[in-house]
Amino acid sequence: MLTIYTDQHQRHATDAVRTEGDLLITEEVPARAEIIVAAVRAAGLGPVQPPEDFGRAPLLAVHAPDYVDFLASLYAKNAAYYQGGGPVFGSTFAPRGALHRPAGYLGQVGYYAFDVGSPVLEGTWDAAYASAQCALTAAARVRAGEPVAYALCRPPGHHAAQAMFGGYCYLNNAAIAARWLQAQGSRVAVLDVDYHHGNGTQAIFYADPHVLTCSLHADPDEDYPFYWGAAGELGEGAGLGFNCNFPLPLGTDDARYLAVLTEALAIIRAYGPACLVVSVGFDTAVGDPVGGFTLTPGGLAAVGEAIAGLGLPTVLVQEGGYRLDTLAENSTAFLRACADRASIAP
Amino acid sequence: MLTIYTDQHQRHATDAVRTEGDLLITEEVPARAEIIVAAVRAAGLGPVQPPEDFGRAPLLAVHAPDYVDFLASLYAKNAAYYQGGGPVFGSTFAPRGALHRPAGYLGQVGYYAFDVGSPVLEGTWDAAYASAQCALTAAARVRAGEPVAYALCRPPGHHAAQAMFGGYCYLNNAAIAARWLQAQGSRVAVLDVDYHHGNGTQAIFYADPHVLTCSLHADPDEDYPFYWGAAGELGEGAGLGFNCNFPLPLGTDDARYLAVLTEALAIIRAYGPACLVVSVGFDTAVGDPVGGFTLTPGGLAAVGEAIAGLGLPTVLVQEGGYRLDTLAENSTAFLRACADRASIAP
Repeated sequence: MLTIYTDQHQRHATDAVRTEGDLLITEEVPARAEIIVAAVRAAGLGPVQPPEDFGRAPLLAVHAPDYVDFLASLYAKNAAYYQGGGPVFGSTFAPRGALHRPAGYLGQVGYYAFDVGSPVLEGTWDAAYASAQCALTAAARVRAGEPVAYALCRPPGHHAAQAMFGGYCYLNNAAIAARWLQAQGSRVAVLDVDYHHGNGTQAIFYADPHVLTCSLHADPDEDYPFYWGAAGELGEGAGLGFNCNFPLPLGTDDARYLAVLTEALAIIRAYGPACLVVSVGFDTAVGDPVGGFTLTPGGLAAVGEAIAGLGLPTVLVQEGGYRLDTLAENSTAFLRACADRASIAP
Repeated sequence: MLTIYTDQHQRHATDAVRTEGDLLITEEVPARAEIIVAAVRAAGLGPVQPPEDFGRAPLLAVHAPDYVDFLASLYAKNAAYYQGGGPVFGSTFAPRGALHRPAGYLGQVGYYAFDVGSPVLEGTWDAAYASAQCALTAAARVRAGEPVAYALCRPPGHHAAQAMFGGYCYLNNAAIAARWLQAQGSRVAVLDVDYHHGNGTQAIFYADPHVLTCSLHADPDEDYPFYWGAAGELGEGAGLGFNCNFPLPLGTDDARYLAVLTEALAIIRAYGPACLVVSVGFDTAVGDPVGGFTLTPGGLAAVGEAIAGLGLPTVLVQEGGYRLDTLAENSTAFLRACADRASIAP
């Protein structure tokens, strides 16, 4: 299995923000990616390569130009305004019923953001850009014949919508990969097995019948991102019927998770995609500080086996997973199952 | 001039929240109302009386039942969940495009809130309820023949919409008073001279041709609440043409402010209301920590004189004003002008 990784993610140096006050403490830290890449190497899961640069165009196939410009320039604008650097985050947010998109960047932060916990730091844009390039590179390798490629993305992406950031996500890496594959002529399905609903991915493809989106996640009545993820969200317009949500209760264990995953995989199989993009989160694991399921390493391995069992060319895109002391074991369990299947793929 | 006041506002003890982290530091503290009531007494502006209790019905004529239930029960639900008290505030917010109203109260906080800076404390509901009763009592006195009554409300209200809190506001006192007067058969105009746009008041009457709303405020491209307040927001449906916004640039001084106020008052005069509700903010004053205009005490007196010059039965409802060291002088200047006119009203 090929892994795409760059240490550019370290420029999104969220561990340095922890002193800024309780509300900004984030579990989404550079150590996450460092632990996983070390685990991939230690387990001998295959080569680790840096991303190629596909430029901004594939990002703009998913995200609005005003949003991309905003994200790329926000930190510098804020530093100029306050005559100094520092993390930028929203404190007032444009809710339902908002009538005005403010011209000033101060109001734009809360126009484009939907939570407090996703700070924009000096290196956030560079890290998010590199993270998206990892996903694109993995997609290109799979398109070129690689059975499975793993984009070790950080920051993650699945909460970022066309023009919205939040949930530690700025650019939607999985959606960017899926859109790129779609543009090459592939029929694509996206499966999201992160603990949290992939609201950004859902929004991006909500009216699109050519990309099927399926997500297993915590019930939004109980957990983040709260405002999307219900079973009744089925897509809209031409995309109606091409979005499938499987909200699960707190405490969901291996058996229950795998039973529901089987349903989701049947839907994907019936859709008949040429390739699969998977948003991979290890925050379904027991004891995750921002999760509420109880998956074991064995359960995560079974999730990987079930996904690989589809026999589809697969792009794995890293999303969440915040319990650092079990992250190596959990990621190895899942990824080894995918890698083993890849090595025996027809 | 009659002033309606109760120290119940002290139960919204925001000064005790200041230790909870930078994001929760609020300028909206009990001292604000205490300074103003002392200034009213010291200046001999007339009697200060406690509110009567009009119950919840007049609140429910403005706010959604689910929202009122939520607000009244939030603190206790949170304390039970976490097995202990503490300020409640949103950190994730339902943005434009949200599809789901979560059943759990954790997600509901950010469903009903639109900023981080409006904590719900143990006494917030009681204080907000009492604040609304002050506005209702002032309205009833004016309806009974009092030329001017001043509701010294705290917490303020004009940012609170039918089912949304933020900007230090929980129940929209001015809208509750206006709706009550409307229900008595009065044709009502609401004038908002707080520094910030009265987005809640605008939203509540946006489709209503029977309550004219006019607001002078900081340009939303430059300042809070950012997502409403543009000149092009004119109302909708039957209410189209009955909402007037006058966004003003940072640095607006007495002369500019009074010139624009003259325009607003002409619109109110042309509407021909039977009575006037004024959202009064002293955060237009020079040096206000959350303002950006430069009004002097003389300017604020002129604002009061111009409003009183309409000769309408008038309910003054306290909103913002956060510079504590000039609050007595500024409030006295404005209120004396209103009181003087009241004493010579026909």
